[in-house]
Amino acid sequence: MKNYILDRIEAMRDFLRRNGLAAYIVPSTDPHSSEYVADCWKAREWISGFDGSAGTVVITLEGAALWTDSRYWLAAEELLDGSGIALMKDGLADTPGIVSWVAGNLSADDVVGVDGKVCSVSEVEAWKADFAEYNIKVDASRDAFEELWSERPALPMSHAEIMPLERVGEAAREKIARLRSELALQGADAMAVTMLDEIAWLTNLRGEDVEYNPVLVAYMLVTMEKATLFVCSQKITEEVRVYLQKENIEIREYNDFFGALAEFDGKLLLNPAKCCYAVLEAAKNAKIVRLASPVAAMKAVKNAAEIAGFEEAMLCEGRAMVKLLYWLRDAVKKENITELSVDRKLTELRSEDKSFRGLSFSTISAYGEHAAIVHYEPTEESDKKLEERGFLLLDCGGQYEWGTTDVTRTIPLGTLTQEEKEDYTRVLRGHISLAMACFPKGTCGTQLDVLARQWLWRAGENYLHGTGHGVGHYLNVHEGPHQIRMNNMPAPLLPGVTVTNEPGLYKAERFGIRIENTMLVVPYATTEFGEYCEMRPLTVCPISKEPIIPELLGEEAIAYLNEYHSRVYEKLAKYFSGELLEFLKEACAAL
Amino acid sequence: MKNYILDRIEAMRDFLRRNGLAAYIVPSTDPHSSEYVADCWKAREWISGFDGSAGTVVITLEGAALWTDSRYWLAAEELLDGSGIALMKDGLADTPGIVSWVAGNLSADDVVGVDGKVCSVSEVEAWKADFAEYNIKVDASRDAFEELWSERPALPMSHAEIMPLERVGEAAREKIARLRSELALQGADAMAVTMLDEIAWLTNLRGEDVEYNPVLVAYMLVTMEKATLFVCSQKITEEVRVYLQKENIEIREYNDFFGALAEFDGKLLLNPAKCCYAVLEAAKNAKIVRLASPVAAMKAVKNAAEIAGFEEAMLCEGRAMVKLLYWLRDAVKKENITELSVDRKLTELRSEDKSFRGLSFSTISAYGEHAAIVHYEPTEESDKKLEERGFLLLDCGGQYEWGTTDVTRTIPLGTLTQEEKEDYTRVLRGHISLAMACFPKGTCGTQLDVLARQWLWRAGENYLHGTGHGVGHYLNVHEGPHQIRMNNMPAPLLPGVTVTNEPGLYKAERFGIRIENTMLVVPYATTEFGEYCEMRPLTVCPISKEPIIPELLGEEAIAYLNEYHSRVYEKLAKYFSGELLEFLKEACAAL
Repeated sequence: MKNYILDRIEAMRDFLRRNGLAAYIVPSTDPHSSEYVADCWKAREWISGFDGSAGTVVITLEGAALWTDSRYWLAAEELLDGSGIALMKDGLADTPGIVSWVAGNLSADDVVGVDGKVCSVSEVEAWKADFAEYNIKVDASRDAFEELWSERPALPMSHAEIMPLERVGEAAREKIARLRSELALQGADAMAVTMLDEIAWLTNLRGEDVEYNPVLVAYMLVTMEKATLFVCSQKITEEVRVYLQKENIEIREYNDFFGALAEFDGKLLLNPAKCCYAVLEAAKNAKIVRLASPVAAMKAVKNAAEIAGFEEAMLCEGRAMVKLLYWLRDAVKKENITELSVDRKLTELRSEDKSFRGLSFSTISAYGEHAAIVHYEPTEESDKKLEERGFLLLDCGGQYEWGTTDVTRTIPLGTLTQEEKEDYTRVLRGHISLAMACFPKGTCGTQLDVLARQWLWRAGENYLHGTGHGVGHYLNVHEGPHQIRMNNMPAPLLPGVTVTNEPGLYKAERFGIRIENTMLVVPYATTEFGEYCEMRPLTVCPISKEPIIPELLGEEAIAYLNEYHSRVYEKLAKYFSGELLEFLKEACAAL
Repeated sequence: MKNYILDRIEAMRDFLRRNGLAAYIVPSTDPHSSEYVADCWKAREWISGFDGSAGTVVITLEGAALWTDSRYWLAAEELLDGSGIALMKDGLADTPGIVSWVAGNLSADDVVGVDGKVCSVSEVEAWKADFAEYNIKVDASRDAFEELWSERPALPMSHAEIMPLERVGEAAREKIARLRSELALQGADAMAVTMLDEIAWLTNLRGEDVEYNPVLVAYMLVTMEKATLFVCSQKITEEVRVYLQKENIEIREYNDFFGALAEFDGKLLLNPAKCCYAVLEAAKNAKIVRLASPVAAMKAVKNAAEIAGFEEAMLCEGRAMVKLLYWLRDAVKKENITELSVDRKLTELRSEDKSFRGLSFSTISAYGEHAAIVHYEPTEESDKKLEERGFLLLDCGGQYEWGTTDVTRTIPLGTLTQEEKEDYTRVLRGHISLAMACFPKGTCGTQLDVLARQWLWRAGENYLHGTGHGVGHYLNVHEGPHQIRMNNMPAPLLPGVTVTNEPGLYKAERFGIRIENTMLVVPYATTEFGEYCEMRPLTVCPISKEPIIPELLGEEAIAYLNEYHSRVYEKLAKYFSGELLEFLKEACAAL
């Protein structure tokens, strides 16, 4: 444990004493409920040294603790040694929750501080209700770090970039007009738009404020009369200023947002699960309408221009992936290659494309037993040499001017065990069963999830992550509101939404398998029973056939795979010649 | 419209005027949220003449209306003609809801009356909230029929019957002890048990107070110290009195229940969706804990004795069904038989069994296009002669001393169209896909539902009822809390629960298909991924093979069907000889 961490914790305790607080909760997100946060919001890392993607630190006058999930237990244990911060293993039955642990260390009438800007409405309200059982209060108006974190990084300051209309298919002013109709339908006359990808979609602006996500840090307030973008003016070039004026979007400073909310006295829609508590506190004169974000629902349904872009991006990715698979086949026999060298090679191959703008998330290149760690990312220390046996799991995606991609392939490097082949075949059969689904318009992902899991379940196997998530259009690789997963997610899979199809299987210390295509929901048929939808794969990349046990895959799935591969060949063949074309032909040959 | 109906409506209006009310809502259930209600609670029928199973009447000072679903529109239209009661077609988008229609006919500060004994807590609270938007109040303390309905039937008065311990497997006092532990776990120290099947299960008593459901009309209050059965003392013979004393169950009069609630000042658990509002009003000194009924969850999981009973009951049913199928094969060619004669023949065959106690619901014997009407029940007027073509849909069940059954078969009577064969095969393939499911312990029916629908969906077809419901043990044929259906039903399919598997397909004015077995959830495997379950069919009855198109059914489903039939043969063969045995052998031969 570094000494400066101990100093920071002591400084926090001093802050608590001076402000009449008995504890302070430090979560890991930002005022925009972002999955990836800019440096200025990494307060949890600043105070604890812990830089995992998920974790909450709580500091009391005498104690401190970090809650994080199993992915980070080993690293956190090492890091926290000697810090006085206890590790709370999230997910174990006997690990106390934050509220019961804090309450056990506090007395009645104590006050817990938290920054309402970096916690959602739902989160703060749940804390308030739970702490009330112990007669403990929650004060959500305290940003301790504004005072304590002297070297706190500035807000990120990338320039806003305008998306060409032909690429997004709908002008910002038209999207805003649609949003207004939607708000009226839902009994609201304004919306606080706080999620960065929603703002990017609504304004047709992009930025580089956050790693992997091409967004700008901003807020928006859309009323029936006005749409206002709250953003640091330094980010707005003259061109963007003119553009925004044309789209009837006013510009105000980022920090003016909460003041503007206080002035609004109409019916304000906000999504309590994603909107920060400070918005609710600021909008004191508004009547609050608590609903899921209509922007998220509108953004999820892609228009023709966006779909065309996705198809273009998938070709870019498909070309890079075929080259990688070709290179890998020989390199693993002749060269000393590792997880990281595959990662670097793939990024290099993606970069050959002019429209490549970066990765859509950190590549998972996981060999052998590493692939059983669901969120494994290779580091210099963990990096593993690839041998001529077992599987390499490669989960990767790119940001292209055209769109965003997300693909996973499980690549056999040589000898496989019977167990590996059977499990691979079951995962693939699940992927294909889901891909072949037809369903009434309005069906949600939870209803279809079993199609991907059924063959694993019959073998007493399962995977504990979701089966699918939406993918943004040159935006975040994870977007809602629809998902495909075991627990109830009621948002429907409407025609036009993108969704991944990624069943997997993980056997600790042995191997991991996942096969993922990004799919597009499209109309299938209209009958006397109503409208039906199906899913069309957007991803254009061969799926390894060597591990397949045909009898276990079944005739229907084999027919689907052969048809998929014939389309992959049809789409990619024109980009290749010679040995690469031969390789593609082989990779796409019928089983 | 009969004149006495008009008189009754006028008497209600007089009641409204005398009591300062502007409208009165008459729903169709009883104080126990029963599916089938005793005559004394058929107030909706008394005041409107409408005797459908679902419907709500509202009477205002000037108007009146009946809300009912599409099953009853035709009949209701005819019945209501000239009554001044408007028909409100439930399920159509432009049909006003009860609240908006009533509010449109009332003024601010008006009061709507309703009997809080025959509406659930959730229902009354929703009305209160919705009417409040119009400044209209709801008074839920009014039983208008106590005064208006002079010839109101008395409470049903069947004698209580004790279930032998070896048949129920657990003494009442043990069930009550388990319930107390469950209540303590859920933060309550008492429960108002108001559903009749829950009381029957908890006390191991049965009765004949309600058609099809072998229950007694009663209430129970279970506290940590006492269990009290509120029941008309006439129903309790000396034998039952001694029995209840031994089980530590006090007896009080049925009408004392609400008074007893008023005296209770602990934490009282009630299920707002199923418990009547009058309970909430009566329990003024209690702290209310709103939760699903722990009795329903306990009752759903069958013990070894109950499972053995189900198996015995299924043999009784299987024998009757085989005889019916055998009779039907020839009778349809030679005799003048109809839907009703099949119904009568089946009941006669069931009655040959000494343990038969009655039907578990009114038999659906629906030929040809009648089967497309989902809840069709033949009447003397609708009764249809069976021809040597098309399908007879037969959905039926029995109450046996051993248990309750529910089975549906779609029986080909002769020539079938290609469409009928294809649709039959798709429904059967869905039934089998669901029957073959293996799933992690804790999975709910919503997650599995698609397995039954997937082949229909691929043909752009669907059915709009649920796929499965629990079945009671010599109790109600419909029980919860688990279900298999498209909308979210989170109660898990735990080992020991019974559940039907009944996909169907209905083509208006052409034909209807449904294939149903009652299944039992059983452990399947325990692996490194946890505990897995599967479903074992309890029903022992051949499934018609003539309509099957083998290529469309698929190899896996054919193998399942052959195995199912070989088990049916194994279990039933010993009861038959001669031509009946030959028939059974043929019906169970491998495809």
